Amino acid sequence: MSNTGPIVWELPPWIGEELDLGARLASDDAKMRFAIDLAARNVAHGGGPFGALIVESSSGSILSVGANWVMREHCSLLHAEIAAIVFGQHALRSHTFAVGDYELIASSEPCVQCLGATVWCGVRRLVTGATVEEAERIGFDEGPRSPNWRAELAARGIETVTGVLSSEAKRVLVDYGERGGVIYDARGSAGG
Amino acid sequence: MSNTGPIVWELPPWIGEELDLGARLASDDAKMRFAIDLAARNVAHGGGPFGALIVESSSGSILSVGANWVMREHCSLLHAEIAAIVFGQHALRSHTFAVGDYELIASSEPCVQCLGATVWCGVRRLVTGATVEEAERIGFDEGPRSPNWRAELAARGIETVTGVLSSEAKRVLVDYGERGGVIYDARGSAGG
Repeated sequence: MSNTGPIVWELPPWIGEELDLGARLASDDAKMRFAIDLAARNVAHGGGPFGALIVESSSGSILSVGANWVMREHCSLLHAEIAAIVFGQHALRSHTFAVGDYELIASSEPCVQCLGATVWCGVRRLVTGATVEEAERIGFDEGPRSPNWRAELAARGIETVTGVLSSEAKRVLVDYGERGGVIYDARGSAGG
Repeated sequence: MSNTGPIVWELPPWIGEELDLGARLASDDAKMRFAIDLAARNVAHGGGPFGALIVESSSGSILSVGANWVMREHCSLLHAEIAAIVFGQHALRSHTFAVGDYELIASSEPCVQCLGATVWCGVRRLVTGATVEEAERIGFDEGPRSPNWRAELAARGIETVTGVLSSEAKRVLVDYGERGGVIYDARGSAGG
């Protein structure tokens, strides 16, 4: 086994420069607008068309943000939701957001991996924009997800709100597809 | 948003001290024995009862190892499979194992999050030990997993072999349960 040294993940510098991370996001529309803006800016900086954030429900303050950094960090796990969860739990020094009252906002519905991550991470609410079908239409495979995923989350105490600003959310995906953006799945050409 | 600094994940020192990382693992039994040993040693070092590794199929050499480091790293994502995938892709500097011929060995069947991660990571084979039911029997919730998960993996070119050394694999879980090991889910007491 090769000794590869530690994994080090840092937020890209543009996150702090271009986004108002001190914003208070009072409505689901405001939270989703932030996630969609993050997704669009991530594409402009060479990443995938997905954005996510962890928000403290009571205050509307942003705990952490993430975007799709699969290619940037050479890590297939690093969907937007995963990045937001990793940085948010790191900020809290807790393996669960259930120490407070947090929610996950994502510009698209979760793939199967991020659905599981949502269950384990301890958020109480999931708010999504574009549908899985819209992500699949431009070529992303969202995987073997349970058709009852919303009921499964509800059974674990997680409320879901889907389709928030769905046309704006979809537009980021469509634009990416039309520009010939890389579909960086396991078997795609993105490894080249 | 608090500025939390970078995420840094390193392998615990005992990994290099106690395991023969240069081993060539010629059979599924040998690979699973390694994963189970890793799970048991992780429990002895205060972690969760799960172990995983990425193996190069042609040579049987170990690319990376992982164990459940949810509590150690304050990260709900860090199941054994996720750790092995993160360190393995870091070693290859590739977001997909499809640049070679790699397989994921895990001491238990994947939860829904790790099932998704398996699809995206680019392995061609998944070998598991204990069943999800056995993990659930000691209190771990494995989540809303598709009942057709093996067919779903097969449809994406990933062969699965389950139940390898299942009684030894199960024993690590049962021992952990009997010792009152922490069930570190999102809503468990582990956050305290």
